[in-house]
Amino acid sequence: MSATPPFALSGGFLGLGPATEATRVTIAGVPFDIGTTNRPGARFGPRAIRAASSMLAGEAHPISRREVLHPAVADIGEFAVVLGDIPASYDQITAQAAPHAHLVVLGGDHGVTLPLLRALAQRREGPVALVHFDAHIDTWPSSCGQPLGHGQPFFHAINEGLIDPTRSIQIGIRSPVDPAVWDWTVDKGMTILSAQAVHEAGPAAVAARIAAVVAGAPAYLSFDIDCLDPAFAPGTGTPEIGGLASWQAQTILRGLGDINFIGMDMMEVAPAYDVSEVTALAAATLVWEYLALLPVYD
Amino acid sequence: MSATPPFALSGGFLGLGPATEATRVTIAGVPFDIGTTNRPGARFGPRAIRAASSMLAGEAHPISRREVLHPAVADIGEFAVVLGDIPASYDQITAQAAPHAHLVVLGGDHGVTLPLLRALAQRREGPVALVHFDAHIDTWPSSCGQPLGHGQPFFHAINEGLIDPTRSIQIGIRSPVDPAVWDWTVDKGMTILSAQAVHEAGPAAVAARIAAVVAGAPAYLSFDIDCLDPAFAPGTGTPEIGGLASWQAQTILRGLGDINFIGMDMMEVAPAYDVSEVTALAAATLVWEYLALLPVYD
Amino acid sequence: MSATPPFALSGGFLGLGPATEATRVTIAGVPFDIGTTNRPGARFGPRAIRAASSMLAGEAHPISRREVLHPAVADIGEFAVVLGDIPASYDQITAQAAPHAHLVVLGGDHGVTLPLLRALAQRREGPVALVHFDAHIDTWPSSCGQPLGHGQPFFHAINEGLIDPTRSIQIGIRSPVDPAVWDWTVDKGMTILSAQAVHEAGPAAVAARIAAVVAGAPAYLSFDIDCLDPAFAPGTGTPEIGGLASWQAQTILRGLGDINFIGMDMMEVAPAYDVSEVTALAAATLVWEYLALLPVYD
Amino acid sequence: MSATPPFALSGGFLGLGPATEATRVTIAGVPFDIGTTNRPGARFGPRAIRAASSMLAGEAHPISRREVLHPAVADIGEFAVVLGDIPASYDQITAQAAPHAHLVVLGGDHGVTLPLLRALAQRREGPVALVHFDAHIDTWPSSCGQPLGHGQPFFHAINEGLIDPTRSIQIGIRSPVDPAVWDWTVDKGMTILSAQAVHEAGPAAVAARIAAVVAGAPAYLSFDIDCLDPAFAPGTGTPEIGGLASWQAQTILRGLGDINFIGMDMMEVAPAYDVSEVTALAAATLVWEYLALLPVYD
Amino acid sequence: MSATPPFALSGGFLGLGPATEATRVTIAGVPFDIGTTNRPGARFGPRAIRAASSMLAGEAHPISRREVLHPAVADIGEFAVVLGDIPASYDQITAQAAPHAHLVVLGGDHGVTLPLLRALAQRREGPVALVHFDAHIDTWPSSCGQPLGHGQPFFHAINEGLIDPTRSIQIGIRSPVDPAVWDWTVDKGMTILSAQAVHEAGPAAVAARIAAVVAGAPAYLSFDIDCLDPAFAPGTGTPEIGGLASWQAQTILRGLGDINFIGMDMMEVAPAYDVSEVTALAAATLVWEYLALLPVYD
Amino acid sequence: MSATPPFALSGGFLGLGPATEATRVTIAGVPFDIGTTNRPGARFGPRAIRAASSMLAGEAHPISRREVLHPAVADIGEFAVVLGDIPASYDQITAQAAPHAHLVVLGGDHGVTLPLLRALAQRREGPVALVHFDAHIDTWPSSCGQPLGHGQPFFHAINEGLIDPTRSIQIGIRSPVDPAVWDWTVDKGMTILSAQAVHEAGPAAVAARIAAVVAGAPAYLSFDIDCLDPAFAPGTGTPEIGGLASWQAQTILRGLGDINFIGMDMMEVAPAYDVSEVTALAAATLVWEYLALLPVYD
Repeated sequence: MSATPPFALSGGFLGLGPATEATRVTIAGVPFDIGTTNRPGARFGPRAIRAASSMLAGEAHPISRREVLHPAVADIGEFAVVLGDIPASYDQITAQAAPHAHLVVLGGDHGVTLPLLRALAQRREGPVALVHFDAHIDTWPSSCGQPLGHGQPFFHAINEGLIDPTRSIQIGIRSPVDPAVWDWTVDKGMTILSAQAVHEAGPAAVAARIAAVVAGAPAYLSFDIDCLDPAFAPGTGTPEIGGLASWQAQTILRGLGDINFIGMDMMEVAPAYDVSEVTALAAATLVWEYLALLPVYD
Repeated sequence: MSATPPFALSGGFLGLGPATEATRVTIAGVPFDIGTTNRPGARFGPRAIRAASSMLAGEAHPISRREVLHPAVADIGEFAVVLGDIPASYDQITAQAAPHAHLVVLGGDHGVTLPLLRALAQRREGPVALVHFDAHIDTWPSSCGQPLGHGQPFFHAINEGLIDPTRSIQIGIRSPVDPAVWDWTVDKGMTILSAQAVHEAGPAAVAARIAAVVAGAPAYLSFDIDCLDPAFAPGTGTPEIGGLASWQAQTILRGLGDINFIGMDMMEVAPAYDVSEVTALAAATLVWEYLALLPVYD
Repeated sequence: MSATPPFALSGGFLGLGPATEATRVTIAGVPFDIGTTNRPGARFGPRAIRAASSMLAGEAHPISRREVLHPAVADIGEFAVVLGDIPASYDQITAQAAPHAHLVVLGGDHGVTLPLLRALAQRREGPVALVHFDAHIDTWPSSCGQPLGHGQPFFHAINEGLIDPTRSIQIGIRSPVDPAVWDWTVDKGMTILSAQAVHEAGPAAVAARIAAVVAGAPAYLSFDIDCLDPAFAPGTGTPEIGGLASWQAQTILRGLGDINFIGMDMMEVAPAYDVSEVTALAAATLVWEYLALLPVYD
Repeated sequence: MSATPPFALSGGFLGLGPATEATRVTIAGVPFDIGTTNRPGARFGPRAIRAASSMLAGEAHPISRREVLHPAVADIGEFAVVLGDIPASYDQITAQAAPHAHLVVLGGDHGVTLPLLRALAQRREGPVALVHFDAHIDTWPSSCGQPLGHGQPFFHAINEGLIDPTRSIQIGIRSPVDPAVWDWTVDKGMTILSAQAVHEAGPAAVAARIAAVVAGAPAYLSFDIDCLDPAFAPGTGTPEIGGLASWQAQTILRGLGDINFIGMDMMEVAPAYDVSEVTALAAATLVWEYLALLPVYD
Repeated sequence: MSATPPFALSGGFLGLGPATEATRVTIAGVPFDIGTTNRPGARFGPRAIRAASSMLAGEAHPISRREVLHPAVADIGEFAVVLGDIPASYDQITAQAAPHAHLVVLGGDHGVTLPLLRALAQRREGPVALVHFDAHIDTWPSSCGQPLGHGQPFFHAINEGLIDPTRSIQIGIRSPVDPAVWDWTVDKGMTILSAQAVHEAGPAAVAARIAAVVAGAPAYLSFDIDCLDPAFAPGTGTPEIGGLASWQAQTILRGLGDINFIGMDMMEVAPAYDVSEVTALAAATLVWEYLALLPVYD
Repeated sequence: MSATPPFALSGGFLGLGPATEATRVTIAGVPFDIGTTNRPGARFGPRAIRAASSMLAGEAHPISRREVLHPAVADIGEFAVVLGDIPASYDQITAQAAPHAHLVVLGGDHGVTLPLLRALAQRREGPVALVHFDAHIDTWPSSCGQPLGHGQPFFHAINEGLIDPTRSIQIGIRSPVDPAVWDWTVDKGMTILSAQAVHEAGPAAVAARIAAVVAGAPAYLSFDIDCLDPAFAPGTGTPEIGGLASWQAQTILRGLGDINFIGMDMMEVAPAYDVSEVTALAAATLVWEYLALLPVYD
């Protein structure tokens, strides 16, 4: 434990400070949730994830022995958004994300991943691989007539050439679904691992499968907290039973150390539905697991 | 108590059925909340208010002895809105509200009052009086750059000639405020009664003051549940301490029986922040008090 | 504060022990709630009230300077009831209550007051005065066809001659009601003080009115916690807005020191709906206020 | 997702309408819970399960691709019960259940399964097979002296010849138990799979075992939500740790497609103890899984 | 509203930044609570009060029209404390407080006021006046044998000559009490206004009484949030019913503009017992009311 | 089920009474939590565990068929502690624990295990084996400079020769950690089984491993409830995701019947963070599992 107990910690994620010349990974919050189709509140996700992260500050990762509270990582606070306006907010988000070499976003609803992927496309040639943990495939062309929202990011990302579906994989999928949407997604080349498949195969096999699909491409990790079962993450807007235990998600992540990750987001934490911070703690810990994978601390 | 206990009641508000030829007052829900500036969730307000109303079904009002569960009142369910799009939703709301002679809306964020007043303007000549219970004056021209939202309805309503500010009154006001916005509102002729003024004057004097301001004009009642103190109504998005007790609001309403009310809304109930249904029960009871004022049961 | 901090206190109400020869007032719990018409759970009321009472142990009443944690008061634990059977439970309750000279019951639903009054009638001649704090008049002949339940105790108590309605008063009444039930009650001679009347008259006038109605008769105090507003007592089954503040109830009780009380009950605390123990604390404190009125500590 | 977002959905389970000529499966609520021995509140179970089901409306099952929101299924609302009277309520429930060819009941305490099985016996010859998910074997002859309640349904069902214990199986059992009750149950021929056995064998083996025990007989599915671990279903009256994960229950159900089910109930959801609707969502989803098994949509 | 919506605000109280040359009032948190005798958790008070203050940022006070989000006020974060050691922590707190000309502390348990007053005594001659809002007189010489804790600060402050009891007043007192402690306090010259006295006299009279007692002396304001009724402030460790409404406290504070305040603390907010942030919001708003009294914004 | 339903049960754990001549195992509470580094509140742990244990009273263990509610087990209530003073409290705890031949403690923060082990050392020669379930290794020499607290018990226990690390094992470890602390612990001979190792090996293998490490020595069982995942035990102060399911812990315990246990503690239940009593129920059930292992009922 650091010299400051968790209840006295202030500052950003883990107590991290603002960006400096040493920064190699940038954390930012995106307090935006009007793209939700059911329970809103992910606008408070960044604040809750940061508060919960205080539990993890000041000691090393038990396996990698890396200390993530390190000058290579910075927390620059919240991105600005436009109240009540999805398209204008997406444009602002893209503009704010684009300058950062390696961005870790605390969301926010999952629709925000679209402008984040657009920003990534401004920095590099060609589509990236996607490693996507979620209960939902999020490739609906629209929800109730609205084409921009938290069920659409990867429909647009595929259509805009931001991700390469043949190098992309979705883990934990289990919601009710429109069969036409499912088939379109598979036809594009996406690999879908249902939650039941994860329960049956075990984390090590899943990690291996992810690495096989990504196949060495630069990869973006998008984690919707509802990939976890509501028992482990009640604080979210569109929970689905039958999901992953937090240990499964954690163990899978630990198996992805050889992937070349270039960015991450942790989405859909809605604290109004959380219980004793368990969802925020799960989200904070999984971000910390991701950070502990990155070769930036030397 | 009716033959059906509250926990077994189904249907609309109080168990009311859909509209018939006998309908003189129509209840509808507007599950819309993307115009909120702080805690969202009023989209679940209509469902919560209806569930809480089951406590009030099947017996008469203790003073007027009217039975509100009556064929003159109907509950037609929810209005459709457009996910994630404020202007398009306002247009849909106006169109759905316009056909109803006397509408009681269960919200939804307070921005929805603007399209409701627009619908009212389609049915009658000239602006109406406004009786407005709230912690906030809601005449900001914009919030964080957004001109349509829950802080703006009466700015636009005045500018569009939908309400007559010289016949209008705001009760319970107490939030931090931009002095320029306050002065503009007063300059337009609006009467503002702060929460502290209500505590000092007492409900009877407040009711008399309201009647004096309205002065016989047809009047619209807009009730933001955050007019109540957070102790009485925690389940809302922008609570302010120092507010009204529920008995004060209830007693004021009971003193308004001589006003010619032509419509009502009950806004900003956000169930995710409620506690044992107390906010929803307060909202349901105040709607029931309003209905008990109306001369439609003979 | 006593030598034991509240969080380490065990035993009965205030940490009181079982009955001894010195006992003049007996506390007992009645964990029974199947007579409820809406939210159940008052079966856990006794346990919650006892736990909350630990805050009040070991110091004196600030006005009377009496120490209620005293050998004159004992807590004998829970009465037995028959699971799922109202008539059999009532008979058991009466039998268990009858031996006690001065009983203070922690309920339990309000229907339980009927067998308690029956027990009282076995010990003394003639009906007693009733001082009844409640949101509901509880003189319905039946609820949904069931003649024994928490809406009926005083209908039967009047009919069985257990209480004298002309010496009885109900304080805080405000629920929807069947006008015929109301009129029957008033016709029997009962005095009804609505919650609004309490807010307008103030506690001192209410206390004087109670004393005037009781007029020196031996009196039974029956306190339904829903007499308090849901802001002060959310943890109950049939809350009604517009109720008393806890300070009002407390101040009224303090004004009743000249009444010859012969028993009390505190009913309808349903902990599953409570918040941070505020309802249980209100109930415990009001029982403690009652005990501080009794001339038994010399 | 359907044209209506979940927060705007009204009507019955999944938004289903009342019975028509096309109805082949009927859903009804039984808001009854006075047979509980610990925490009450399952009377609010039907309302909570219906509200939670809105998450599942408007899309297909991800495996069977069946759309359960279909004219073959109807929701007829709540059955009437008699307040505070177990035997009379059971008789009413049986009478109301009997006309329905295939009934799915949302409970309610588990005692209600007894009158439901009696209704079934009025429609067909001979006992049925029972597939029973629970933490408790529910074959106690009485609880605290009461012979009718949520611990007794299958004691009576066996004695009355309503179920065939040799074709019946209990899954997830783990509570403390009277050894004599356990031995009686086994002696009757019942198969008992403890929760630990489920954890060790895995869902596929459990599904196979169920099918083997049922052996082609017409079967009734009775699901007590406390079969799930309290982490997955805190909102219930008699939770026991060590229970099933929701994915295990879901996967087992998906393996029972060849069983000839003739009715189902989902019991013991007590919303006052639920957290962010996770229990209600689990119950709603498991009912939806059951409905997706039925060959009624062609 | 400021350009940043409340949910996106970061930084200190109201979003205030660290101290600069313009700073005239310094806010600091003291996350310390091991001096509590009942429910702990006030160590999380500073964090919760800051988060709740985001609701108040960016607009002016409605009466004084002062903008508290101003360079004259700074938030320097948390003071260090020694885990599990009261005397050592008090010494550290005094040392950290001493350099600040005008300190506003977010607590923390009420014992912390003692080292804060000691720091004040290092900066000026002679005892100060105390304006003390609380349910408890906090002049017990010890609690369960422990002489340093949240029931003792003013016992020591009087004995150490830090405050002048003849210029000091306690408002809202109502807990059970040791009569000897009460008498000692009064004998020292302290004025005690019970909660009941506040309810009867009204806020204006109370404010006048406070000013009369202080009589022009430099004054320290110590506000224990349990001065408010648990309905308004459930999130605290030793709640007592019968307390002040938030509007009463707010109105009293607004009447103290002529007092020469030299420091303030807001103590005993225990977020684990809070509900939808109402306690934290009350505390934040009352601090903001205090700041709006200070003549530092010109 | 016993003659008394759970909601009417009073007395100690399971309703057990005070010590008699038949007592062979003594249960006591230690309401002490000022050694916590994050969320406090374990002082209320003993009360919550006892209340939750009512669910388990009156029936036999389903596998061993032992009835733990037996004269061989007694509950003597709470140990006294010194408010706000860790060293003095530890001394008091040791003194109170020492007389008991076989003590089962309901905590309380984990620092309390140190004085309990010291008491054990007064009764027997040489160090004991430790079977330690936890998310944390608890061998930090200090936390934020404080050498006595809930992260230190086994650092001191090893140094004082109270436990034999070569016969000791820690199960469920997964928190961030100081690598030097980890290495020191392993160097002393301690066996550490991470949570991930438990998930991969399964409960039977873990039980075998524990027995192998203990190797027949007399063993003390120390169970920190945060060994369970926050989904199963949110009510604790330093939760870590990725933990054990309650069924895993339960199954491991059931496999330890051949170990010669000489004492146990159940620590870190913090009810303010619990949800519907699930953490308290888990703790109570695991204590009951332990008691069912002991050969004391003949």
